[in-house]
Amino acid sequence: MAKVYRVIGLEGFPLVKEGDDLAEIIVEVAEKEGFPLEDRDIIVVAQKIVSKAEGRLVRLSDVEVGGEHRETGEYAERDPRLVKLVFNEAKETLKKSEEAIVVENKNGMICINAGIDKSNVEGRDTYSLLPLNPDLSADKLRKKIRELAGVDVAVAICDSSSRPFRRGLVEFTIGLAGMNPFRDYRGKPDLFGYLLKVKNVAVADEIASSAELVMGNGDEAIPVAIIRGLDFEMAEGHSAEELFVKREEDLFKGVL
Amino acid sequence: MAKVYRVIGLEGFPLVKEGDDLAEIIVEVAEKEGFPLEDRDIIVVAQKIVSKAEGRLVRLSDVEVGGEHRETGEYAERDPRLVKLVFNEAKETLKKSEEAIVVENKNGMICINAGIDKSNVEGRDTYSLLPLNPDLSADKLRKKIRELAGVDVAVAICDSSSRPFRRGLVEFTIGLAGMNPFRDYRGKPDLFGYLLKVKNVAVADEIASSAELVMGNGDEAIPVAIIRGLDFEMAEGHSAEELFVKREEDLFKGVL
Repeated sequence: MAKVYRVIGLEGFPLVKEGDDLAEIIVEVAEKEGFPLEDRDIIVVAQKIVSKAEGRLVRLSDVEVGGEHRETGEYAERDPRLVKLVFNEAKETLKKSEEAIVVENKNGMICINAGIDKSNVEGRDTYSLLPLNPDLSADKLRKKIRELAGVDVAVAICDSSSRPFRRGLVEFTIGLAGMNPFRDYRGKPDLFGYLLKVKNVAVADEIASSAELVMGNGDEAIPVAIIRGLDFEMAEGHSAEELFVKREEDLFKGVL
Repeated sequence: MAKVYRVIGLEGFPLVKEGDDLAEIIVEVAEKEGFPLEDRDIIVVAQKIVSKAEGRLVRLSDVEVGGEHRETGEYAERDPRLVKLVFNEAKETLKKSEEAIVVENKNGMICINAGIDKSNVEGRDTYSLLPLNPDLSADKLRKKIRELAGVDVAVAICDSSSRPFRRGLVEFTIGLAGMNPFRDYRGKPDLFGYLLKVKNVAVADEIASSAELVMGNGDEAIPVAIIRGLDFEMAEGHSAEELFVKREEDLFKGVL
């Protein structure tokens, strides 16, 4: 026997704009592409289309800056209007450098430029901000999909991000509904019956990464992937914020 | 249309011991389980069975310690014999604390306890060390699989690891053969034709994560997964070491 799951990247997606009903589009495109949604599918949705549907786009030409933004902009070689957008999203600024402004977002996630990004956004000076409350966005999608298609799915909203120690972006989950983000082995036996002490796997991030492999980050136009046939823990009441570690509790504190 | 790939976790794997020919076992088990290897499969192999086949197991009772190990052991609440094993594998020790000893391994990878691990290793005081040269191990597997099954595959040797900022382990690639670890978008267009400046995706790590979702970290007994149908860049001459960032060049330097 083998344990098999599939990752299905949905092509044929329309360009998403403010006010669009994403659940409706996802259900329709999945149907049209020959993969109607099923119970226990995990629907992985690129942050970018959630932000677009929710109107979380900003034109730099609409942003007015102050001295603080000009100063940081100069220091970090950044457009001061972009600096202002980053500061607006941040709870705390952790680093300013030429390559990156690293912040802790209001929901506790540490990321570069507060997740503000230009790619796949129309308009030369238009940027996308992260959804205001990605867990809530995921939960709404999950409920609406159940209403429209009669199926019980999990939803993960994901974004690509740089990470310490290792080169290149990988995809992380930033908003979640309908599943436990972890598979916890602590206290469970290994192959030889020894109890595992420290293994707690962040499956929600692994799921985002497996979806990125078909979604891509460029002009692939695949903003949604379905993970089908995977054994995972469907559950209510979880949040992507469970994935974020407070800096003072970080195992790697002091290393970088 | 949809872009679909499959992740196939191979059950029915025998317990691996020193001297076993892993390529032979993988080819046979894949065949037996109904998934004979194909050209362009990516074979993801858990570090643990590579270490076992290569005899990279150590019994703590065989380890003799010195004062330095006792001192660090006391400080970090660790068995001083384990401390000695970690120091032996490390180029530099970056942090010692009760929860973790963080080191830079000789090949430049930053990890906890030098990747030394007890889980799924037989013998109450036996630990597994990482393969001496994981890229070479991957390359040998790739060549031997081609010889035995006449197919051209990529091989990724992977291990689960904690990471900064985010809770839980995810799977990373620590040894690689036959593929480019990155999908580089820099200079390529997005959906609207704007050229992407910074997107370089670490697909080798995303592949490891997608495999972990079926392989597991406990008593699942699935040490190998086949990634089939994925669009990726087969290529010679790459190394998992391309994934490791030097600390002085780390974007997040100073944040933790």
